[in-house]
Amino acid sequence: MQDISASAKSAISVFATKKPVFVCAISYTATCEIPGLTIAGANPELVKYTSPADAEFLYYGHCKCIDVVPATPDGKPTPAVLTRAALLAADIPLLVVDAGAKFKPLIPYVSFGVEPGGNIANENAMSESSARRAFGHGEILGKQLAKLSDLVVVGESIPGGTTTAMAVLSALGINAIFKVSSSMPENPHDLKNRVVASAVKRAGSVSSPFEAIAAYGDPMMPSVAGIASGALAAGGKAMLAGGTQMSAIVAILRRLDKPIRNLCIGTTSYIAKDPSSDLEGLVVRASRKVPILSCDLHLGESSKAGLRAFAKGFVKEGVGAGGASIAAMMKSKGKINGKKLLRAIEKEYESSIEGARA
Amino acid sequence: MQDISASAKSAISVFATKKPVFVCAISYTATCEIPGLTIAGANPELVKYTSPADAEFLYYGHCKCIDVVPATPDGKPTPAVLTRAALLAADIPLLVVDAGAKFKPLIPYVSFGVEPGGNIANENAMSESSARRAFGHGEILGKQLAKLSDLVVVGESIPGGTTTAMAVLSALGINAIFKVSSSMPENPHDLKNRVVASAVKRAGSVSSPFEAIAAYGDPMMPSVAGIASGALAAGGKAMLAGGTQMSAIVAILRRLDKPIRNLCIGTTSYIAKDPSSDLEGLVVRASRKVPILSCDLHLGESSKAGLRAFAKGFVKEGVGAGGASIAAMMKSKGKINGKKLLRAIEKEYESSIEGARA
Repeated sequence: MQDISASAKSAISVFATKKPVFVCAISYTATCEIPGLTIAGANPELVKYTSPADAEFLYYGHCKCIDVVPATPDGKPTPAVLTRAALLAADIPLLVVDAGAKFKPLIPYVSFGVEPGGNIANENAMSESSARRAFGHGEILGKQLAKLSDLVVVGESIPGGTTTAMAVLSALGINAIFKVSSSMPENPHDLKNRVVASAVKRAGSVSSPFEAIAAYGDPMMPSVAGIASGALAAGGKAMLAGGTQMSAIVAILRRLDKPIRNLCIGTTSYIAKDPSSDLEGLVVRASRKVPILSCDLHLGESSKAGLRAFAKGFVKEGVGAGGASIAAMMKSKGKINGKKLLRAIEKEYESSIEGARA
Repeated sequence: MQDISASAKSAISVFATKKPVFVCAISYTATCEIPGLTIAGANPELVKYTSPADAEFLYYGHCKCIDVVPATPDGKPTPAVLTRAALLAADIPLLVVDAGAKFKPLIPYVSFGVEPGGNIANENAMSESSARRAFGHGEILGKQLAKLSDLVVVGESIPGGTTTAMAVLSALGINAIFKVSSSMPENPHDLKNRVVASAVKRAGSVSSPFEAIAAYGDPMMPSVAGIASGALAAGGKAMLAGGTQMSAIVAILRRLDKPIRNLCIGTTSYIAKDPSSDLEGLVVRASRKVPILSCDLHLGESSKAGLRAFAKGFVKEGVGAGGASIAAMMKSKGKINGKKLLRAIEKEYESSIEGARA
């Protein structure tokens, strides 16, 4: 299919979808408060609102818990702009899951009853029982959705999430040093390495995936892993919509010995081809059976500097932008291709970003 | 279709469903604390847990927030037993909405961000802005569900809800005295009349449906009305699964001038034929265009006294039991009829009620 690539040839037909549902898990890890780790918010105070604001943006095209649309300190917009454009273009239904967001969005959201995650440099992310509960709640929701939809697409919004992903991958025996992606073109690998080293020094080795999540992860992980696991257990198909963070989800499901046939990762070409990270390498180490689908949204050709930045190593992915775009292309049987989506994204950008500034 | 009756002949084919989704809204009104008004709980303390416990029961077949299954003081079980049996028999997906429950269930639930309702004899049920927000959140959810399902079935669990329904119907100009149903065969009409009279004396007349809900209603009402309205607005069909409380929802939607084509009520024959209430009379006064579907579950033929009681005027309906049963019959194209459901309900009763006692 035009503008979709896959790491395994058959994957594009296996995950073809007529009736996808998109789930966005919003979450928080205090790890993101370490200076220099993330630019998913205009300043440290606003980062706390990024994930609920992203969720509100998906429904309304503007935010309610804050006055502005989430952006980097120099104004590059949240990838939720891409996600919203894709969902609207293909009329894809949306559910938001609160997987430990710091503030609650002013929308209907599914609560998994979990708290925001701790800063793994200094403390555990969450209790093991809380991680198990989030996974269990995710499985319940995933099972219900698989009865209604032929592809459950799960994205995330959690600033700082690549660092916790790196830590969990390492705890599960997968070397992720210099491999996780970043919202910045100058990936702060050294800082991430130091944070993970502090966490390892603090928490030591682990003997189960839930212990790994509790010590090194964040509340997004068990929630998203559970949703995917439930959808697959009910005989459905699931797409993890995101970048290198999703390799940690694959590793968790694999270590839990959950069936992962009919599971894939959906992302943007900006992540799949990112020279500063290695999604494919991480996923192969987590499981050779999970294909990666990626889409070309032609953002480098945009007339908007804020969107061209995505093709230059900024932001690149998030809020399930890549997976939502792939689902939109597939649901429309290719009528919506990368260039059509680019125009829809530019219109969304004009109304929600430029319109708000005016 | 066998074991389904309808107030309008065409309704059974209009609402035929291949892919229903069941939504249970759990809520609370402090009005239920007035002694003698409800038996939807073994004692006044447990009534506070009835709706979250019902929701847990639907997913797990047992409760988590309390040790027992909700029941009347003399042990007649919650109608959630019927609902769970129907959902399982036809593999119908379930979502739970927290529309102001007093305690939160240990399941994934959709939060509408509303508080439990006040005792309308003494105080407003909720703020008008809160009622509007619940309606808006309901509309968002209903729209998403209509994209996934051809029939959105919405039930409720709120002890004391028939009294607030009576009050809102009265406030909207529909005489509901002696017309709302009860979980008891000796319907405490006089007590309900006194409660509503106190509320009217306190709050006076209202000029809008949201004002009526705020003064006289409960948080279930705007939530359920919103879900139905959203499903209908998205071009879907909706079934209000419940008894006389649902006539208040119809009245609210009608007064809001929302389109109600493709809206119906689904209930049990025990409500439709209840000599102590008048569902059809109330619905006709709310709108002549909303048909009532009712199902015969043959509970009078059960070997279990706790289930035979449903046919003798106890409990009769609740937790969307009638609507869920109708959806199960329709989804199975009649393969699941009333007697088949009776056997499934008896099995559920054996494992969850008798099994728990043993």
